[in-house]
Amino acid sequence: MFSGAQVSLYPMSDAFVGIILGALDALDPWRARLRCETDDLSTLMVGPPDVLFPAMRDLFVAAARSGVHVTMHATVSRGCPGEPDDPICAPARGPVPDLPMPERVARARAAVAAAPGLGQPVAAQFSLYPLGLDSHMGEIEGCIDFLKESGTFARSKNFCTKLRGDAGPVFETLAQAFTGFGAPQGHVAMDVTLSANSPTRA
Amino acid sequence: MFSGAQVSLYPMSDAFVGIILGALDALDPWRARLRCETDDLSTLMVGPPDVLFPAMRDLFVAAARSGVHVTMHATVSRGCPGEPDDPICAPARGPVPDLPMPERVARARAAVAAAPGLGQPVAAQFSLYPLGLDSHMGEIEGCIDFLKESGTFARSKNFCTKLRGDAGPVFETLAQAFTGFGAPQGHVAMDVTLSANSPTRA
Repeated sequence: MFSGAQVSLYPMSDAFVGIILGALDALDPWRARLRCETDDLSTLMVGPPDVLFPAMRDLFVAAARSGVHVTMHATVSRGCPGEPDDPICAPARGPVPDLPMPERVARARAAVAAAPGLGQPVAAQFSLYPLGLDSHMGEIEGCIDFLKESGTFARSKNFCTKLRGDAGPVFETLAQAFTGFGAPQGHVAMDVTLSANSPTRA
Repeated sequence: MFSGAQVSLYPMSDAFVGIILGALDALDPWRARLRCETDDLSTLMVGPPDVLFPAMRDLFVAAARSGVHVTMHATVSRGCPGEPDDPICAPARGPVPDLPMPERVARARAAVAAAPGLGQPVAAQFSLYPLGLDSHMGEIEGCIDFLKESGTFARSKNFCTKLRGDAGPVFETLAQAFTGFGAPQGHVAMDVTLSANSPTRA
């Protein structure tokens, strides 16, 4: 199943080019399992979800350590019928099993509870789009049940859910939402924004 | 039908707060027809698509006129079954009619051709998500037919389409994609990023 993300990093600083280039070193441990292509708007990362989310986490945390207000946006997708499959997208843990909703919610919560902290507080908001389903709201409601007890839930907003916490569990929450909801082999997209060091109080 | 956007503006400058606050004046002509709420991640704008897109355009163009590299992200939504309707969301032009695909494509192209230029070049990329449909790819393919002859098409990317041109026709392209594809009264979401003054060559 093809999966990947279009990722953009935005440091609110005159030194934005240097901060972005410096943060890219954080992708080095992941590069053998990702295919990347950059243009003026974003970097495409093609790879399985169990590589994509930790790679995005390490990239964002590296930029946030600069201390400047930095945001990151990603359009993440799996199973798009218009994209050919790619061997680099095979998840190390194998495909996600097709389980009943309460079991999926419990597994997702356990994964977030086990995620190590990285000492970098972040805020995030995201929307999850399970596509090609008449009954997409059932998947979204199941995901919201998971989020509300995830430990990273901040609040529901119009069109999205807001998270807050350490980058470790926050990125694990995003990974679990993306892989655990929507049909296991179906088309699912995520629109996610992260922020660190904002001068605006939440 | 409830419609709105979560909008964030990102000036890549030490003076980002002043650039954002200055650009907000550009929303003044639209404020009577929008309901806005701001937190540390985004500004919610609730209103009909024929107000949302020109309001986002004027906000982004005002920020781009600063000359600094600036990007904007919006999560735009209409018809979400989880959101109550709001009288402020009624479009001035009335609801979009349910027309056959070739007619929708022709109307969307005509609207972009008629959009006045604003003298501000921008790049954009977006994904359109028609939700609650078994057959979402048919709507996406119809939208891509429109985009390829829109005059603002730059290229297809994985998970999104890239546009380039004057802010006037580019924002009209986004508005037409959002209102003309997916079920007329159905749930449709858009994930869009705009960029101006980038130091990176396309």
